[in-house]
Amino acid sequence: MRILGIDPGLNTTGYGVIDAEGRTLTLVEAGVVRGTSGRSLAHRVGEIHAGVAEVVEALKPDALALEELYSHYERPKTAILMGHARGVIVLAGVQAGVKVHHYAATQIKKTLTGNGRAPKSQMQQAVQAELRLTAAPDPPDVADALAIAMTHWYLGCRPSAIGLP
Amino acid sequence: MRILGIDPGLNTTGYGVIDAEGRTLTLVEAGVVRGTSGRSLAHRVGEIHAGVAEVVEALKPDALALEELYSHYERPKTAILMGHARGVIVLAGVQAGVKVHHYAATQIKKTLTGNGRAPKSQMQQAVQAELRLTAAPDPPDVADALAIAMTHWYLGCRPSAIGLP
Repeated sequence: MRILGIDPGLNTTGYGVIDAEGRTLTLVEAGVVRGTSGRSLAHRVGEIHAGVAEVVEALKPDALALEELYSHYERPKTAILMGHARGVIVLAGVQAGVKVHHYAATQIKKTLTGNGRAPKSQMQQAVQAELRLTAAPDPPDVADALAIAMTHWYLGCRPSAIGLP
Repeated sequence: MRILGIDPGLNTTGYGVIDAEGRTLTLVEAGVVRGTSGRSLAHRVGEIHAGVAEVVEALKPDALALEELYSHYERPKTAILMGHARGVIVLAGVQAGVKVHHYAATQIKKTLTGNGRAPKSQMQQAVQAELRLTAAPDPPDVADALAIAMTHWYLGCRPSAIGLP
């Protein structure tokens, strides 16, 4: 199964695609989609949608996983801006017929490290180890995106999660 | 000039299209785009995007006007959900090459009624009178959408606003 994880942001949206089979996870591709800073909100949501749609089109994931809604936005301003980015990312998935799944930030951290409050550096190390990478993914948005994809496999659709070996 | 005003919501998105020339504003079409309640967020943002894109395609507005960001969302949860709807609406505009403009809620109310805190009923009456309608627009989302379109004409692009008669 091929899973696309996304860490949304209006400036930097991290994405990571993994192939998962049993206990073996393999990195397919990871990177960032950037909204041009200083351009209008409209321009930036257009860039984010186009960038994510391109990744979906090129890599044809079976599932798209995102961090849960409103898990850590304390200010309405940040929340609504993040919502714009998230809305067009979800749209890119639904337009390509890819099902969208959501996981809470604490759930992602706990799944990868055993600690729901793990710091970014620990998350980067866990992703690096699990995917057998020679260096920690950078920027952290990429590590977060890969962590979300991995969480979907471990919690959402791994055969053992539905009682199979 | 043809202006599309939109009042975004995940359940009901009101839209209103007016033609404006000098002091004469004429209603072209108004209505609502509904996200199917009970369906996933992904499904609903898909419906909202498709509905707004269809209006833009059919009526070819010169401008799209929306209520300003985060003017009255006090809770992050509501704000981020509204952000999803708003994100895909802005995207529908930018994909069709229509410029997107934003106005604060108080600015819209003040422009239409002289009172930045006007209640919904007063806004509906103002829209009805200005557009010479036989009844107040209903639901209020439609009146709000028309009020936003009218505000764009009065504040944004009416010739007198840039110093011409």
